[in-house]
Amino acid sequence: MHLNPRFAETTPPPVMEARRWLEGVSFPPERPLLNVSQAAPVDPPPQGLREALAEAVLHEDAAHLYGPVLGLPELRAEVAAQWSAGYGGAISADQVAITSGCNQAFAAALSTLAGSGDEVILPTPWYFNHKMWLDMQGVRTVPLATGAGLLPDPDAAAALITERTRAIVLVTPNNPGGAEYPADLVRAFFELARSRGLALIVDETYRDFDSRTGAPHDLFADPDWADTLIQLYSFSKAYRLTGHRVGAMVASPARLLEVEKFLDTVAICPNQLGQRGALWGMRNLGRWLAGERAEILARRAAIEAGFPRLAGWKLLGCGAYFAYAEHPFAMASDDLARALVREAGILLLPGTMFMPEGDPAGKRQLRIAFANIDADGIDRLFSRLQTTSF
Amino acid sequence: MHLNPRFAETTPPPVMEARRWLEGVSFPPERPLLNVSQAAPVDPPPQGLREALAEAVLHEDAAHLYGPVLGLPELRAEVAAQWSAGYGGAISADQVAITSGCNQAFAAALSTLAGSGDEVILPTPWYFNHKMWLDMQGVRTVPLATGAGLLPDPDAAAALITERTRAIVLVTPNNPGGAEYPADLVRAFFELARSRGLALIVDETYRDFDSRTGAPHDLFADPDWADTLIQLYSFSKAYRLTGHRVGAMVASPARLLEVEKFLDTVAICPNQLGQRGALWGMRNLGRWLAGERAEILARRAAIEAGFPRLAGWKLLGCGAYFAYAEHPFAMASDDLARALVREAGILLLPGTMFMPEGDPAGKRQLRIAFANIDADGIDRLFSRLQTTSF
Repeated sequence: MHLNPRFAETTPPPVMEARRWLEGVSFPPERPLLNVSQAAPVDPPPQGLREALAEAVLHEDAAHLYGPVLGLPELRAEVAAQWSAGYGGAISADQVAITSGCNQAFAAALSTLAGSGDEVILPTPWYFNHKMWLDMQGVRTVPLATGAGLLPDPDAAAALITERTRAIVLVTPNNPGGAEYPADLVRAFFELARSRGLALIVDETYRDFDSRTGAPHDLFADPDWADTLIQLYSFSKAYRLTGHRVGAMVASPARLLEVEKFLDTVAICPNQLGQRGALWGMRNLGRWLAGERAEILARRAAIEAGFPRLAGWKLLGCGAYFAYAEHPFAMASDDLARALVREAGILLLPGTMFMPEGDPAGKRQLRIAFANIDADGIDRLFSRLQTTSF
Repeated sequence: MHLNPRFAETTPPPVMEARRWLEGVSFPPERPLLNVSQAAPVDPPPQGLREALAEAVLHEDAAHLYGPVLGLPELRAEVAAQWSAGYGGAISADQVAITSGCNQAFAAALSTLAGSGDEVILPTPWYFNHKMWLDMQGVRTVPLATGAGLLPDPDAAAALITERTRAIVLVTPNNPGGAEYPADLVRAFFELARSRGLALIVDETYRDFDSRTGAPHDLFADPDWADTLIQLYSFSKAYRLTGHRVGAMVASPARLLEVEKFLDTVAICPNQLGQRGALWGMRNLGRWLAGERAEILARRAAIEAGFPRLAGWKLLGCGAYFAYAEHPFAMASDDLARALVREAGILLLPGTMFMPEGDPAGKRQLRIAFANIDADGIDRLFSRLQTTSF
């Protein structure tokens, strides 16, 4: 049986790969595993949301049946209303699609833009699932090296554009780097994309944990935003709905008609309960989410405050759920990550998973998804790393 | 902003298109809409399953969190056990992947097999979402005309194989044709695929409503089935879980490792509640499902018994959820389908949606998804069609 050669060239899912490193390793009770590998809440959603879901399960027949491909109309309208207020722009419900998670939103948007032989610009370090999808589709990923603060440079991006370039992808706050892109930087990329007829895809999965208040960019205030911008969002982090698979895409209605073709064939529709959970969360959990954000920002502060304890380490970026760091060891990061499971009871992902193959920087870098560990856990993390050497 | 030209060439989702035909049309109380357009239960799952889901929502934290990309281990194991018993073969849990619906299983399987420029053989009439996915991927669909009873001929398929052919896809019981492929026909396709190094994809979404008892084919009894066969399944129809998006793929572990890459980037994991619903259904709804099957078979019998009332019509195939018929009117089926909404209060899909563009047969054909209407509804359907002419 044939194997599409693009799949042979695509790396396996890093998070699943990392889980396999745990096999056969035992963690003594006095030193349990510190899992900072995945950007995911480890607690269930708040009780009110659970009760709302149970109510829908028991009493709302439509919660069990097919719905529109582009999502629950009430949820699309709620996103449009909250976005319009939050970003200071005019976003209508027909500019919103609900997807089965934000990864699916990316795959759908990209598919409508780029096919085999086309090019897409991704700042490095990149989110590995973006790279994997592009690889499987035969779209060439053009890496855009970032500078200080892991911020990409629009002029450097401009120099990478060819006649096959279809899109530039930004993730802000960034996964894996944690960087919060300044509004004027996002605007500069928007103007670049607009002037060259490209799509600017802005993945704001971690938006709700941005340390800045107010809108993180002003793109939606541009009356013609929909000619250039495709924004992606996830309900997973804000409302602890990772297991329910709900994300969103904000784009022009014409783009969403194309996206609908893709979503119909890979999902038919987003699952109905997850959409109801997201809607309930948007309507009822604003205050709760503010508390969640404050907690994540406190953890970030603890990471930044404690980092100097690690001699020879360098914090390259810190924000959202992530610290992205350079380690001082001679060992390459992919070997180091495996060794840290055994030697320190720490599961994290190596920079090699976020960087182009063979890039020496990836060998020196590690991503720490700190959002899942509290202040005590962060203290233990530093203590273990302090006493570890390779 | 660019549009991937393959999307421009891909038809919009037929079911969504058909829903738009309803806009602006009013249906008087004495003649309500008869919707036979979509293959979907219109009732929610049984109360026990709803209560099991509510229990998981309220009391099982993991039901809200990410799980393995390839699905809930208990559900994979349950499928393996029930399939091994039902098909008389040895199927292990690591040969089962859970997907967010059967469409996603198809997209994932196909992607690992075929890329741009490759070819896949589909019997006609085909399931439109298969065709749409292949179009978006730049994979050439090679139509295989069917003969009496809408059955495909392995010799005709053999003549269509080229060096770019990667797979043959069978849907049995068939959507849209209703045909239940005889076991020896499925076996003949398996042998053809094996001898030519192709994948045989068998989509058994409607398996639970097959009129035959026992295993519908003997492929799993072949010790080397996994070298050739990829089987697809849906939990949506059996347990009325359409809104929960749960399907399955049965294939070799090596294939599933490739499938895992695709699923990670378009779904991360199937939603957790839907998987728990499917598992509860498999463990508790065997007897209930037998009753569902009996009801669907009774509706099929009512279609077959009543069909002679329609002068000039020809029933080409009938089974599972579908009757596929030739109409006697001069009007082409795509115009006819729109006219039937207004003139007869009937929503059904035209053969043009299931046939290659320009194929004259499609203009004469219609699909009636009868599973959603009871004996009275079937009687009304025939009465309305009897008194309609164009």
